[in-house]
Amino acid sequence: MSDKSKAVVLVSGGLDSATALAMAIQDGFEAYAMSFRYGQRHAIEYECAKKVCAQQGVTSHVAVDIDLRTFGGSALTADIDVPKNRGSGEMSIGIPVTYVPARNTIFLSFALAYAETLGSSDIYIGVNALDYSGYPDCRPEYIAAYERMANLATKAGVEGRQRTKIHTPLIQLTKALIIKRGLDLGVDYTLTSSCYDPGPNGVACGKCDSCQLRLKGFREAGVRDPIRYA
Amino acid sequence: MSDKSKAVVLVSGGLDSATALAMAIQDGFEAYAMSFRYGQRHAIEYECAKKVCAQQGVTSHVAVDIDLRTFGGSALTADIDVPKNRGSGEMSIGIPVTYVPARNTIFLSFALAYAETLGSSDIYIGVNALDYSGYPDCRPEYIAAYERMANLATKAGVEGRQRTKIHTPLIQLTKALIIKRGLDLGVDYTLTSSCYDPGPNGVACGKCDSCQLRLKGFREAGVRDPIRYA
Repeated sequence: MSDKSKAVVLVSGGLDSATALAMAIQDGFEAYAMSFRYGQRHAIEYECAKKVCAQQGVTSHVAVDIDLRTFGGSALTADIDVPKNRGSGEMSIGIPVTYVPARNTIFLSFALAYAETLGSSDIYIGVNALDYSGYPDCRPEYIAAYERMANLATKAGVEGRQRTKIHTPLIQLTKALIIKRGLDLGVDYTLTSSCYDPGPNGVACGKCDSCQLRLKGFREAGVRDPIRYA
Repeated sequence: MSDKSKAVVLVSGGLDSATALAMAIQDGFEAYAMSFRYGQRHAIEYECAKKVCAQQGVTSHVAVDIDLRTFGGSALTADIDVPKNRGSGEMSIGIPVTYVPARNTIFLSFALAYAETLGSSDIYIGVNALDYSGYPDCRPEYIAAYERMANLATKAGVEGRQRTKIHTPLIQLTKALIIKRGLDLGVDYTLTSSCYDPGPNGVACGKCDSCQLRLKGFREAGVRDPIRYA
């Protein structure tokens, strides 16, 4: 048995969650990673999540299958075209079509159940409120409200045995700072995938909002992005 | 197209949610029912949910498959014995082994996603804070915190287009009052199942906490429970 405390870490296979995982381990936690297979068009993400977890030496990695396609309405799960070549001005206006209804709320709810079962009171999620494409469920006020609800939801919270803490170590960092921090911690970004619309063999398009934010982040960090682009 | 507003109603196949569904329809909503198949030992519940939805004439009924067994730790999903023949004093002490970690949090999160996709701002859940076997996620303060979080989570909430309301019409009712109200609204309780440990053919055990609360409710309502018991 380890003396370390356990933390549940949501790992998508993207750049942000790979960095959040490294930060959880750096904070001294034993990492229990959790990924979701949610009918996303970019199933390549899950393969990346597995590699990221293996490289960073997590204690356990569980995958949860859920079908968000039941609800439709997003370019990440349905047949809507992913927007390409938008400038940062255009990206910052409103909430994009790539928004998935209540996605982080669903993910955090499974993480909460997993944490309670493990006897853990710590959950890490790599949300970001700066260059984040406008998702409402990435904002600090949302996370604070989630944490408050979680502490009323669970047996452990009610019995006063533990208070759940939702860690969001990236929430106020720029993409460039996230990348620098990750590189310092030994994150291998070759294993990550950020593209909303990858081609065959998982090659990133370089044009969707997510690719553009990633490329800009590497540029500003003064480092070459190690993945392949179309 | 109907002029009615849409509501998402969580329907488990039990007595409480069948009554909550009738109350949603009585409130004037077009009902979009949602059920979960979560590896429960009592899969009979889902068959009941289908019949309840058909009898009450819902507009749509979606089923979501999730596997809570990944997390273990509950008599409703794992191989722990369901307690039998406990008195009401014993039942009211602490949180029972039949508690499923974060179950209502997960269910409400899917309901929130479904509601957002439908353009609905109303969710009904048949939770009860009185004779409820001590689940933390059935209490009014939990529901209020969930609602607050939900209004920060969604595109519709952020854009001010709608505020999500979590309706809990049963939360302060005794089981007897729930049954009387349901009978007034024409709920056919023959179609419902409440047992935590049903026998072959779905026959209720009559001894688990849930059966005892149900039988007591019918007794106090002065009505015979129409389902079969072992």
